[in-house]
Amino acid sequence: MSDVLTHEELTSQLLSRPEWHIGTMEDIPCLCRTWTFANFADAFALASKIAELAENYDHHPQINVAWGLLTVIWWSHDAGGVTQRDVDMAALCDHLSN
Amino acid sequence: MSDVLTHEELTSQLLSRPEWHIGTMEDIPCLCRTWTFANFADAFALASKIAELAENYDHHPQINVAWGLLTVIWWSHDAGGVTQRDVDMAALCDHLSN
Repeated sequence: MSDVLTHEELTSQLLSRPEWHIGTMEDIPCLCRTWTFANFADAFALASKIAELAENYDHHPQINVAWGLLTVIWWSHDAGGVTQRDVDMAALCDHLSN
Repeated sequence: MSDVLTHEELTSQLLSRPEWHIGTMEDIPCLCRTWTFANFADAFALASKIAELAENYDHHPQINVAWGLLTVIWWSHDAGGVTQRDVDMAALCDHLSN
């Protein structure tokens, strides 16, 4: 189990990922990004890629899809916060969406 | 554009669909159901089927997937509430998940 990143560590890492912000999920800090699209299908297509990525790495986010919107939320439930693994998964999501 | 169902009409229709409940989305009434699964992949598999259904009917829900959980939320943004179309889509989701 990875250590939870401190708020300072996380803020520092997010300087290079400004699309991600720190939120809370069930009172636990989490890492969130929302993408916008011109339709539902394109939003779900990226969601599917991220779901496949999650399976491959055996680490799973919350994924919310609505018309033209995809929100992905990473946190480590066992650790009780955001770990390096979550930041790495966020980076992989950025790569997939580029 | 369909008419919004009254609370009484909706409650009556939901008698035969007890897994669905009335919630709110951006202060608009909506129709919600959560399914539970033993893993992320099974939850996302049903989400994918519902996304395809949504495309086929050109009416799109909000879909939230987390580990072992799928929540689907139907409402008609243009009508400002839940219409017969949303109840029909909920019924199709039930059929898909049986």
